[in-house]
Parts: sequence; structure tokens; C-alpha cells
Amino acid sequence: MTTKLLLSGGRVVNASGSTDADVLVLDGRIEAVGRFDPAALGEVERVDVSGKLLLPGGVDVHTHLDSPMMGTVTSDDFASGTRAAACGGTTTLVDFAMQTPGSTLQDSLAAHHAKAAGKAVVDYGFHMCVTDLYDGATKEFPEIIGSGVSSFKVFMAYRGTIMLHDGDMFEVLRTSAAHGGQVCVHAENGDVIDRLAADLVTAGRTGPGSHEIARPPATEVEAVHRAIRIARMADAPLYFVHLSTEGAVEAVADARSRDWAVAGETCTHYLTLDRSLYDAPGFEAAKVVLTPPLREQHHREALWRGLRAGSLGVVSSDHCPFCLEEKRRLGEHDFRAIPNGGPGVEHRFIVLYAQGVREGRLSLEKFVDLVATAPARQFGLAGKGAIVPGADADIVVLDPDGTTTISAATQNQRMDYTPYEGWELPGVIEAVYSRGDLVARAGRYVGAEGRGRFLARRTA
Amino acid sequence: MTTKLLLSGGRVVNASGSTDADVLVLDGRIEAVGRFDPAALGEVERVDVSGKLLLPGGVDVHTHLDSPMMGTVTSDDFASGTRAAACGGTTTLVDFAMQTPGSTLQDSLAAHHAKAAGKAVVDYGFHMCVTDLYDGATKEFPEIIGSGVSSFKVFMAYRGTIMLHDGDMFEVLRTSAAHGGQVCVHAENGDVIDRLAADLVTAGRTGPGSHEIARPPATEVEAVHRAIRIARMADAPLYFVHLSTEGAVEAVADARSRDWAVAGETCTHYLTLDRSLYDAPGFEAAKVVLTPPLREQHHREALWRGLRAGSLGVVSSDHCPFCLEEKRRLGEHDFRAIPNGGPGVEHRFIVLYAQGVREGRLSLEKFVDLVATAPARQFGLAGKGAIVPGADADIVVLDPDGTTTISAATQNQRMDYTPYEGWELPGVIEAVYSRGDLVARAGRYVGAEGRGRFLARRTA
Amino acid sequence: MTTKLLLSGGRVVNASGSTDADVLVLDGRIEAVGRFDPAALGEVERVDVSGKLLLPGGVDVHTHLDSPMMGTVTSDDFASGTRAAACGGTTTLVDFAMQTPGSTLQDSLAAHHAKAAGKAVVDYGFHMCVTDLYDGATKEFPEIIGSGVSSFKVFMAYRGTIMLHDGDMFEVLRTSAAHGGQVCVHAENGDVIDRLAADLVTAGRTGPGSHEIARPPATEVEAVHRAIRIARMADAPLYFVHLSTEGAVEAVADARSRDWAVAGETCTHYLTLDRSLYDAPGFEAAKVVLTPPLREQHHREALWRGLRAGSLGVVSSDHCPFCLEEKRRLGEHDFRAIPNGGPGVEHRFIVLYAQGVREGRLSLEKFVDLVATAPARQFGLAGKGAIVPGADADIVVLDPDGTTTISAATQNQRMDYTPYEGWELPGVIEAVYSRGDLVARAGRYVGAEGRGRFLARRTA
Amino acid sequence: MTTKLLLSGGRVVNASGSTDADVLVLDGRIEAVGRFDPAALGEVERVDVSGKLLLPGGVDVHTHLDSPMMGTVTSDDFASGTRAAACGGTTTLVDFAMQTPGSTLQDSLAAHHAKAAGKAVVDYGFHMCVTDLYDGATKEFPEIIGSGVSSFKVFMAYRGTIMLHDGDMFEVLRTSAAHGGQVCVHAENGDVIDRLAADLVTAGRTGPGSHEIARPPATEVEAVHRAIRIARMADAPLYFVHLSTEGAVEAVADARSRDWAVAGETCTHYLTLDRSLYDAPGFEAAKVVLTPPLREQHHREALWRGLRAGSLGVVSSDHCPFCLEEKRRLGEHDFRAIPNGGPGVEHRFIVLYAQGVREGRLSLEKFVDLVATAPARQFGLAGKGAIVPGADADIVVLDPDGTTTISAATQNQRMDYTPYEGWELPGVIEAVYSRGDLVARAGRYVGAEGRGRFLARRTA
Repeated sequence: MTTKLLLSGGRVVNASGSTDADVLVLDGRIEAVGRFDPAALGEVERVDVSGKLLLPGGVDVHTHLDSPMMGTVTSDDFASGTRAAACGGTTTLVDFAMQTPGSTLQDSLAAHHAKAAGKAVVDYGFHMCVTDLYDGATKEFPEIIGSGVSSFKVFMAYRGTIMLHDGDMFEVLRTSAAHGGQVCVHAENGDVIDRLAADLVTAGRTGPGSHEIARPPATEVEAVHRAIRIARMADAPLYFVHLSTEGAVEAVADARSRDWAVAGETCTHYLTLDRSLYDAPGFEAAKVVLTPPLREQHHREALWRGLRAGSLGVVSSDHCPFCLEEKRRLGEHDFRAIPNGGPGVEHRFIVLYAQGVREGRLSLEKFVDLVATAPARQFGLAGKGAIVPGADADIVVLDPDGTTTISAATQNQRMDYTPYEGWELPGVIEAVYSRGDLVARAGRYVGAEGRGRFLARRTA
Repeated sequence: MTTKLLLSGGRVVNASGSTDADVLVLDGRIEAVGRFDPAALGEVERVDVSGKLLLPGGVDVHTHLDSPMMGTVTSDDFASGTRAAACGGTTTLVDFAMQTPGSTLQDSLAAHHAKAAGKAVVDYGFHMCVTDLYDGATKEFPEIIGSGVSSFKVFMAYRGTIMLHDGDMFEVLRTSAAHGGQVCVHAENGDVIDRLAADLVTAGRTGPGSHEIARPPATEVEAVHRAIRIARMADAPLYFVHLSTEGAVEAVADARSRDWAVAGETCTHYLTLDRSLYDAPGFEAAKVVLTPPLREQHHREALWRGLRAGSLGVVSSDHCPFCLEEKRRLGEHDFRAIPNGGPGVEHRFIVLYAQGVREGRLSLEKFVDLVATAPARQFGLAGKGAIVPGADADIVVLDPDGTTTISAATQNQRMDYTPYEGWELPGVIEAVYSRGDLVARAGRYVGAEGRGRFLARRTA
Repeated sequence: MTTKLLLSGGRVVNASGSTDADVLVLDGRIEAVGRFDPAALGEVERVDVSGKLLLPGGVDVHTHLDSPMMGTVTSDDFASGTRAAACGGTTTLVDFAMQTPGSTLQDSLAAHHAKAAGKAVVDYGFHMCVTDLYDGATKEFPEIIGSGVSSFKVFMAYRGTIMLHDGDMFEVLRTSAAHGGQVCVHAENGDVIDRLAADLVTAGRTGPGSHEIARPPATEVEAVHRAIRIARMADAPLYFVHLSTEGAVEAVADARSRDWAVAGETCTHYLTLDRSLYDAPGFEAAKVVLTPPLREQHHREALWRGLRAGSLGVVSSDHCPFCLEEKRRLGEHDFRAIPNGGPGVEHRFIVLYAQGVREGRLSLEKFVDLVATAPARQFGLAGKGAIVPGADADIVVLDPDGTTTISAATQNQRMDYTPYEGWELPGVIEAVYSRGDLVARAGRYVGAEGRGRFLARRTA
Repeated sequence: MTTKLLLSGGRVVNASGSTDADVLVLDGRIEAVGRFDPAALGEVERVDVSGKLLLPGGVDVHTHLDSPMMGTVTSDDFASGTRAAACGGTTTLVDFAMQTPGSTLQDSLAAHHAKAAGKAVVDYGFHMCVTDLYDGATKEFPEIIGSGVSSFKVFMAYRGTIMLHDGDMFEVLRTSAAHGGQVCVHAENGDVIDRLAADLVTAGRTGPGSHEIARPPATEVEAVHRAIRIARMADAPLYFVHLSTEGAVEAVADARSRDWAVAGETCTHYLTLDRSLYDAPGFEAAKVVLTPPLREQHHREALWRGLRAGSLGVVSSDHCPFCLEEKRRLGEHDFRAIPNGGPGVEHRFIVLYAQGVREGRLSLEKFVDLVATAPARQFGLAGKGAIVPGADADIVVLDPDGTTTISAATQNQRMDYTPYEGWELPGVIEAVYSRGDLVARAGRYVGAEGRGRFLARRTA
């Protein structure tokens, strides 16, 4: 049976511009945008969104749900993680499927599919992490890409577990590009970091604050330059995840100005949190033991500038949640064993809106681009990221006059903390639609279970 | 009386994306975009555009109509020039109002208004050229900007007639910025050029081919760097007209990567014509005596690259037409006296589509951005440059399967030549709508006389 | 009659290295360097310089003696100025011959020759300042260069008096290069400066401290970039006088790394004095009204770094002395009328030694290079700048264990102040030889009057 | 018994300048330079060198004598190699002591000492190659440095045999710097190269010409950038051996312009031989299977430019000789097994003189700097590299009017080929003195056996 929904009286904000217009939804897709005579529309559910902003549902292309890492598993599975996403205004995820040691890529991918199917409540895709380039691994690329997993990820850090050396990274880049895929890179010089970290432990500096000292900005900047050069040799497109430094922004800007296929993402926390959190007493700093670490203010300013200038095109959450108790259990006596990561999928949208738009750093349209439109385009998520006829009706209704208060006590993420604890932000997400379904209202999930669909992507 | 128009069955192409959708127009504005049940629309003129592209009407922000220059006047007035524009798919112009020697800015502007009013057939705005910064000149800026002429232009070349020295340029930049205006710069080191040109004449090389030799790429590159530095001192936004060189693209790219308010335009001819035209025998080369001159291939490649990378954001025509006979009359014996300029407003749209999109250099969406969306945004042309609800119904219906042949014999520009003579291009503009009015069909003007409106702009 | 002098037991310091060695002087030239058996030398005046450093006599290539400027004349003539130089360890000057308004270059040069001849007590050469490129001016270049004045100077500031526009600068560069000359450039964007200065006066900020505000670093950096580009067009070597900013150092470094013929000098005061001197009360700041102005610390650090890295190759004094009373007389009510300049020829050597070598910023050899060897090589001063067989016996005997105290009361410069008043510096110049003659001892001139010789130079 | 030698009538050329002077040698050291009355010198051997150039003996800081590599040993031992050096005008070597697999650094160094002692006929020092950073390796650094081996070498290529990963390179840099040492880096991205090489073999392209294809310029450029960044993190000086590409020159130039302690060397063959040699038929190309490979012309031009601009400071031979027959034996069926290297110690001096000075690319003084003075200074070779009082009397007598013909048939290197076969060069080395001893005359060794001395160096 056909369902018709009319969101009327709001302001439609796309990356390309804003206009006062109604949005007509038919069977989960946007049928038309404009001014309509309701009388002429036949039977329709009309929702008055006067005074509200209608924004494309958020697209978060960097999450780790139900994912084995550093001897444990991320705390959110696809049920809890996607509910948190939906409540926070994010209606599409691209999650990282880790290659399991000793398993083929395809088997690892199948296992990740199994974790998501029937659990996810918003639509999702996968990147395939390549952590061991066994003989024949690249032979699987065409089929993986053909199945809609058109992006890979490699790590330039974590020798001995998931790091690839430059020759293998080159091979992944080259093979992926040959079949229309793209490659996400975690850019840090892991070998130098390991040496610095070992020194700190030898010196008895085993606490969580050492995490940052072991990963100075130059370790990221070096790796970014190297990856760009290797990608050029491979004639392959390149996407940097979670950039955190001024030097990285400059390197990406330089590459892009030459019309090279280089793109860069940063994350909510690099834009909004300061490295001084590592100076917290006791084990508190473990909350921000994430990789790369938080940086000083001038890096944050460079990241905002990079977003405005277009050098960086995406803001993701790098949602990689581990409860503080779990961090303590594993790494209380050696910061190197603290699982690296933190929560973020739920709050990315509103934090970026508040700190970006409301603080005057981003236009509303640029915000929409960074949080939804650009990541959708970057990763081939057809039908996502814009409120236009023919697109999926993934829509966030935001009240600019409301207020959002963040707290671990009320969040939907399966976490015992949030780095934004107590933040009061202007603007509140009133309602979230996914393919026309109302899935969240006032921060609570109201949709059906397991309704999310796998999104086969093409990025070529 | 209300008029309703439905363009149905086409593919709507915006800079932000493309979709198969109908466009509903009411009283000259776009009422809605999507899929509509015609039965529900009441009385409507329905036009079937199946298989056609619906593109925003072109926006050309660099024309010189009815303009005194180098001892003569451009050959197109507002009637002939805007008809040519309309026939070529361009529905909005921003023309340069020259300051007349001895006149105030406001008087000069009023004179230009008088030339356009009742003659123009498409909508138009003005930039104000400042060629003599007399005492009190900048005091007029607020009123000029307030009247909707929110951009100025200065020349770094042509000492003794229209060039401003760096101190005056600095003052124009600073004052304009203080009142929300922006400044367009013609960036060439005129003093070095004058010296080179004088040498050529002294050496007896008086023919039109010398024009290029007197204006080597470095004269542009130097001026671009200088203007950027002066604009930074003035804390003012800057827009470069008609960039032609690789070095200029690099300079603008570098500035933009720092999030400086620097923008750059190039023109159709720099993208498509080669400097070898200056080697033509006789006076033939005078056809491309335009400023800056055409360049070598590697510059062209850098310009295309700059457009793709976003370093350059606009393609204009720099329509500055002088008939070949007039060029000969004035400059047959000294190339310095040949009026600088050529035609272009009529063919910019289709040449860029053919050489850009059809040759694989630009996506269709990027083409739309360059030819319409970006120039409209850059210069505050509200309601122009996109096919979205609420915008003016300026729409080009393009048949990608047709062919366009360019010839002076059939063009609408009041010119005795075109540099694109005999070009056969894929794609043809079938129909052009301006505010919902059909104004051109198959290259012939079919609209009313003098229907164009002055567009008051705000660019802050 | 032959005279023989043996400086024995000292440490000979050249830019290329240091060694313990005796220096044998015959008839004003260095006959041999090494270890000698005095018994075998025949009749010789033996001077014991054990424990002392023997350094090449200083070469100062930027002085303005007896020079008309801004409505007055510099306070030192060739007698007083060269005595001060000699006492301070400088045995060679290259002074600027200003073109007199309305005079030809050759006449102006002849006039400057007349001022020096019979008065100078150390050897000297001239640069020719071109301040008005009248018809035929460049025709005089070959003869001027042939006469040993192989370098010209142009000003990019001071419109209306001595500034050349870019076209004339280009012409000077080109013609000079064609005849084996080189060009010194005063790089500041004078037109922007004039505007800023006029604004300050309009705002009532007429005091000497405004001098610095009107000349921000970017005015120098812009001009440096421009001059480099114009010199490249002219295919001509370029020498920047008195660079003061980090951006200028970077521009020169970049040019030099491309093997372009670009060189740069800075001055003692830019290395050692801070812009905070402009905040002095009353008219005190007029003491440092020199051009370009003093800068902030990070610029100073960049200058030292540039010297070490070889981007800057020369440290000059820019000795351009005006007594404070004269500055007050002319500019008390308008800082623009304060003659620009300060003293320095006497103290350059010891201040650079103390602040450079003794503060650990320069090696002793590098100091020698900057203060003597490099300027001699740069400007074709054959026989100057090194203690090697065949060279002129211009030698400074410096006692590193002594102390120098600077004071206006005791200086030889004809000035009523010194910006280094009261400075106590490690190291003292004990004796100074010019062509084998002892000319100064313990800061007092002991040589003959008018003994200096004009040095015809070749720089090609 | 004292010996006195007077080289009289020649032109003494140092990096710092040239002068007509006699050189007096006493007991192997230079006693004095200048003009001497022979009658006053007592008993002296007087050699007339009128019309000849007296140049400092060459200093070659990159040789591999009697060195195990890639399954074989270099063909020259310390006897043959140093004789060849002496005959070619090189009187000082710094040779690489390889760490033997399974041995400590000190044991490896002792073994290399044993190979040289009593065999070398010119003076020599060692660099210590670190190829396996076993536990405790860096603890040996202070003693090694203290013994006069103050420089280390690491390889960024050749995984599995001698390559260090970035973390170990960082550790070597840091520890070395802490004790006043410096580090030489072989900069190539070995991992990418290995992948490219494996692909070529898989594709059946096993011949020697593939060597170059597997090592594209970008593999060097990437590694150079990486090493600079890692050295900055380690706050350590860095010396690049055998740079071959334009990009590498630019990277080093940029670092040096910031006053970072980065230096670079290139080699004779990169300056003079073209990559087209890899297109030779059969196994001929194996003659130039050396690492990095020869490059295209624009790289050569960049290297010459870099030498002139000072970005590169040293020209070495990278003498690493393997007879063609040995290359064939090991690598006829797989280019990866061809030992990498070629001869050069004998011809570096005269080839650089002829191609540099006589072709107008270098001044005579710059040539001396590159071939002797700068390498001596860079690596702390006191008493070497200049003809000044107190220095060792290592002197080359060169007749600029003679001619040198290079041929494998007549060379002193223990090799069955030379890449310069048949070259006729202007200039001939007539005589070579080492510490005052005549060791070579007209290309034949005439000195005593085993007279060379180990040179303990300090580089801090």
C-alpha cells in the first residue's frame, strides 16, 4: 500500500542551498520538493514542520560496530550502535569490516554481514579492512567490490597486528583502483610511535596520558605525505581517515590543488576537544585514548579552516566505543594495552551543528555537506545525503531554538561515558526519518527493529 | 493572471546532482520539482522535454556591452548583446560599468544604467570599474553597493588610462570590503608589458602577433601574487577575472587552501584556443588580440585542472566585441592600438559543455556549477543558477543528441567574426526560458523586447 | 722603498677555515701565510699578535655618506664616515651615489666621486642609484659599469622622489645585466605604505612610532616577490638590500634553491634591535626611524636562520646617519618627514661578532664570511675579504678577551646618538690595517688623511 | 730527518678562492703558502709547477672496498682500491664498514679495520653501516664514535637483509645525534621497489634493464621526505648518500633553507650518465645496475643546479665495483640478483673536473669544494680538503692543457669495465701528493705500499 507523507512549512537545507519548501514523500522516497496544494495531493499524512530545519539524514562513514580490536570487542553492536545513530540524526553508516587473523577477506566480510543483518535499524555499508595481504588476497578484490563493498582500509600503524608495510599498501591501492575501488588509510608512522611508546614505558610513564606523547603530530604528517606519494605511484584514489593535524591538512590541500584524487576526513573530537584532557589525573585520560590523539588548538583551527577551504571534505565520528572499565581492565598498567577509541556516532551531528554552524565556523549548507552530502558522494551512497526528488526520504527535523544536553546517563550508545558529558548545545533534533519512517523522536528510538538495509555501493 | 508551466520528463541537472524530475513553474518562478500528477495541477502548459537536459540558465559575470574602450565602443549594445546571450543559453549577465574620465563613479554608473534599461532582454547586474580614484571616490562606495552594485573592478595594467597603482587598489579593496563589497582584479603587470610592447614597436614588430609577446605569462603571475598579498593587507575578498596561466592557478589554489577569500575565473577562450593563432599571417591574429593573450597547451591543461580541483570557480566569456574592421582601422600599424577583446557571450555555454562535458574533462554537474551556479553565488545573484523551488525559472533545454555549428554568418552577436568559426559541437540548445518566458528557440530570439531586469545584488 | 710586516703568533680566520699562522705583508699586500723563520725574512717589522684573531678587514657594501636625502644630507661625510669605519674594523665601503634630480647619471656619479676623493681614509667603491629613468639613461650604463661602478640601485618605494615603477625597474635590470652589472633593490611596496602613512596622519598619529605601523612586514614581502619575478623576466641578477622579514628570507631562499641569481643582505639592526623601540615616549622613537623598520622577534630569528642557511649572504650597516636634532627639525610634526636612517658603519663589525659568534648563533668563519668575504665576492671587490697570499693586507686584530663599550660620547661617527648606547660586548678590536698601514688602534684613527682609494669593480 | 718540498709557480685553487702562489711543505704538512725566496728556504726540493693547478687531494666519502654484498664481495680491496684512488687524484676515502649478519657492530668494525690496515695507500676513515639493530646495538655507539668512526649508515631498502624499519632508523638517528655522530641514509622505498621488481619478474622481464623500471624516481623522493621528517623528530643531523632525482634535490633544498641539519650528496654517474644505458641489448645494461639507477636528463640538470645552489654539497663516487662477469654469474636470469654497484673512485675527480668546470657548469673553486673541501668538512676530516698552512700536504697537480682518456684496459681499478670507456677529457692529473709524498704520476702509482693511515674523525 502506498504511503504519502508531507512535511510542510519547513526550511529545506541542502549542501547546495536552502529554500522554504514542502517535502512530499511517497513510499520512502522523496517524490517532490516545492510548494503544494495539499488539497491536490489526495490522502497524505501531513506533518507541520514550520520553523524547523529539514536536513538530510546524517551519513557517518567511519564506525566500528561489534568489532574485535586490541583483545576486546567494541561495546556497541549493530542494534545498539545504529539506534544511537538514528537518535542522533544519522541514518546511514559505513562500518569497517575487519579481516580476522587467519581468515580470508571474503570470510571476514561474510562474518561482518552476519553481525549486521537483522540488527541494524538504519541503512549501512561496509569498508573492508585489509590487515594481512596473504597470497591471493588481492584476487578477491573484484568480487568484494562487485558485492557493493567498494572501499578498503589499510593501517600504517600497529606493526605485528594490522599494519601493512608500504609495498603491501601500494599493492592494495593499485589493485583496488584497477577495479574501481578506493582505499581508506589510517596514516600514522607506527614504527616510530612504537619506539616512542616503548621508551615511555621503560621510563615508567605507563599511564594513559602517555598515549598522546607517543604519537606526536609529525608521525601523522609523515605518513600522510608518504601515502600520497605511494598512491600517486599506484595511480589510485586515496581517502584519509581521521586527520588531526595542520600538516596533514596542508598535505591534502596541496595534493587536491593538483587535481589528484586525494580526500580527507576529520572527526568530531579533533574539532572540539583539546589535548589537555590527557593531563587529567588517574585513569581519566583513558577516555580520550583514541588514535590519533587529540591535538593543540592551532591544529583544531587548521582543521576548521581545512573544512571551509574544502581541503577536508568529511566529518565522521570514528565511533569505536570501549567502556572505561574495559579500558582499565586491559590497560591500567600499560597505556599501550588500552583499546584505542571512543564513542561518537550519536553526537556527531548535533555537536558539529552547534560548534560549526552556531559558533559561526560553518554555514548551514556547509554543515550539511560535511555531515551528509559529501560522505555520501565520496563513498557512492546513491540516494543518500540530499533532500531532492528521487532520493531516500532520510530527513532530520531540527529545531534551531531548542537545546540538547549530552550525558552518558541519557545517551543511547552502550557506553559508560561520553567525552561531551554535560555539554549544553543550541539546537535539538526533534524527529528523524529513515526512508520515510519516523525512527526517532526527541532522542528516543521509535522505529522497528532490524529495519536497516545493506547498501551496495559503487565509487568508481 | 497566473501562468503555470510544466516541463515534464526531462533530467534536471544542478551543480549538486541530477535527477529525473518534472519542473513546475508558476508566474516565472519554480514552484516545485519532482514527479507530479498533471491531473492534479489544474490548468497548466505542459511541455514534454523527455530525453532532454534541463539546466539552469547560464550566468555570465564578465561582459562589456556598449562600453567605451581604447578609442572606440564595443560592438554589442544591451539589445544585441543580451539577445545573443539568450540565444546561447545565458539568462543573466553582470556587465562592467566603466568610470568615464572626468566623471564620478555614480554618474558613470547612472549612464550605464541608462544604456541597459529597456534594451536588455535578460536580467543583468553591474560591476563598477574604478579607473581614477579621485578624492572622495571611495565615499561613494556605500551608496553604490547599497544600490545593488556590490562589486568593483580595478586594472593593474593600462597606465595612463585605467590602471590604478597598488596604493589605490589597496584603498579600493579596503573600502569595498568594509561595506560588504568585493573587488574584481585584472591582474597583469602593465608597466612591464608597456616596456616590452614599446621595444617590439621600436624593433618594427608592429603586427598583431606581437600582442602576445608583450604579455608573457609571468606578467600575469606576478600581478596575481601581488594582488593576493595586497588584498590580505586590506583584509578584503578578491576575485580574479580572466586568469590564463598555470602560475596564476597555483597562486589562487595556495590562497584558497589557507581559507583566504580569493576566487578566480577563467574564460572560454583560454580553455579552448591556442596561442598559435598569433602566428597567423596578415592581420588575422587581431581576432585574438584579447587580454591576457591565449597561452600554450600546458596552461590550458592547468586551467582545466584548476576548474576540476576547485581552484578556479567560474568560467565567463569576457565578451568584449570589436569587429575585425574596427580593429584594423585603429591598430593596423601598431598592435598597441588594436582594441583588446573578442566576442563570446553567445557561445560560452555550448563550447564549455562540448569541450568540458563531452570531452570528458568535466562532469555535467561541474559544468552547471561553472557556467551558472558558482557565478551566481559568487556575485550574490539570488534566485539564479539552480533549478530549485523558489528560484527564477531560468532554464535551458539542451538536447545532448543534437549538434551545434558555430559561424559568424549565423551568430546573433553583432560581430564580423567568431574565433570558433566552423566548429561543430555535440549538443544543441533547444529552448531557453527566462523567468518562465520562452525567450529563445533553436538559436533565435523569440521573446519580448527590453524585458530584462536589473538585479540588485548583495555579496557580503 | 719596500716595507715588510710580519704579524706573528695569531690565529688567522678566513671564511673557509681557521689556522694558527703568521702573516707576511709586503708593500701593502699579503706575501705569504704560514710559519716563517723570522731570521730568514731579512728586515721586517714584527708584531706579536699571540692570542689574537686576525680577521679580514670588514667590507660594508651599504653606506650613504655625504648623501642628499629627504631634504637634508647624511651627517657623515667621507672623512668622518670612513674614519668611523676604520676604527670599527671596516676597511672597505661601497657607498651609494644618488642620482641628483635633473642630472644625468654620469654627472651625479662624478659629483659623488668628488665628495670622496681625498677625503676617504679606507678604500671604497660606488653603487649608482637610479631614481629617474630619463630618456637615454640606460645608454650610460656601459660606461658607468666600465668605470668600475658595476652595480645599480633602484627603489620600489618613495613615489614622487626616487621610486621607479616596475617597467623602469625591469629596464634597469635588463640593461644592467646585458653589460655585466647587477642591481640592488630596495624592496617595499611604497604605494601601499604611502596610503597607510597618510591614514595615520589623518588620524592624528603623527609621531615617530607611526613609522613602523605604516610599513608592515607584508609591504616588504610583496615587493621581494615582485622583484624576483621581474628579475626573472629580465634574466638579470638581483641583490636585495636590508631585508628585515621572515617572508623575505623565505622568498630569497626559494629563489636561490632554483639556482636563480638572487642574493640578499640584512643589516646589523634588524638582527639585534626590536620593534618595541617604536613604543618609546616623545620623539625618542625617531632614532630608529629607518627603512624598513625594526621587526618582531620571530623575524629576527628568521634572519639569523637565513644567514646560517645561506639564504642571506651579507650583513651590511645601511649607515645612513641623521642626528636626532635634525630628525626633529624636519619631522617633529609629521613622521613622514623624518629622514629615514641611522648610524651603523662603526659598530657593525663588533656587534655582529658579539651577537653572532659569542652568542653562539654563528661560527667565527661564518661571521667573517658575512662581514667581509661574501660582500667582497658579491660586488667584485678583488683583493678584499680574505687573508690569503696576493690579497690586500686589510686585517683586523681582535682580542677575544677584551670588551667593547658603545657610546655616542666616544664614537667616531658624526652623530648625537647610537642605537647601541651602553652596550657592553665581549671582544675588542685592537688594531686595524688597511693595505698594510696601521690605521686604527683601540678605537682611534691613527692613519693618514685621505689615503683611501676608489675601487673599480667587476661583478660579471 | 726533516724534508722540505716547494711546489713553485703554480696556481693554488681552494674552494674559497684561487691565487698564484708557492706551496712550502715540511714533513708532510703545508708550512706556508705565498711567494718565497728560495734562497732563504735552506735545503729544499723544488718542483716547478708553472702553468699547473694545485688542487687539494680529492676526498671520496662513499666507497665500498673489500665489502660483502648481495652474495659476493666488491672487486677492489684496500690495496687496489686506494691505489686507483691515488692515481685518480683522491687522497682520502671514507669507506663503509658493513655490519656482518650475526656480528656486533664493534666486531664488524674491527674486521673492516683489519682489511684496511697495512693495505691502504691513502688515508681513510670509516662509516659504520647498521643493518640489524639488535638489543644493545645503540649502546655501542659512544665507543664507536669515540674511536673516530663518527658516522653511521642505514638503508631504507633491501628488506630482509640490510633494511631498517622507520622505528629503528629513528633510534639510530637519535642515539647517534646524542653522542655527536651523524647518519648517512640510503633513501629508497624498498618495499614498493620489491613489489615492482617482483611484478617484472612475474611478467618475464628478468633482464638488467628492468632494474631501473623497478626503482622509479618517486621511490627515492618519498624516502627522502620521510627520512627528513624522521630526523626532525629525532632532532638529528642527516646526510643523504647518492641522490639522483629532482624531487630529492628540492626536498633537501627546502630542509636546508629552514636551517635544518640536512645534507645531500650525489655521485659522478648521476651527473654524467643517462638512463638510456638500460636499453642496451643483452646483459650490457648490467654495467649500470647500480642503486639508485641512472635517470633522465631533467634530473641531471636538477642535480647540477643543486650543486651550484648549494642544496647538494658533495660529489662522491659510490665506488662499489663488481666485474661484469660476476654480475652475470649471479644475476643473468633475474636482475634482482645482480650485485648493485659500479666502479668510480679512480675517475670521479677528472670526470667532475671535465664535465663540471670545463663544460661551464661549475667554477673551479666550486669543483674543489665538491670534490674535496666540503666532504672533508662534512665528515670531520681535519687537515684534509684545502691547501692552507697546517693542513696535510695532499695535493693534486693538474695540467689543464693535457688530456685524459679513460679505458678499462688502462685503469687501476680491479674491474673488467668502466662506464666511461673511451671518454676523452680535457685536463690531466700529472702528479699526486699524499702527506707530501709523491704517490702517483701520470696515472701510475709510485708510492710505498700500505702507507695509508686511519683517520679518526669527529663530526659534532
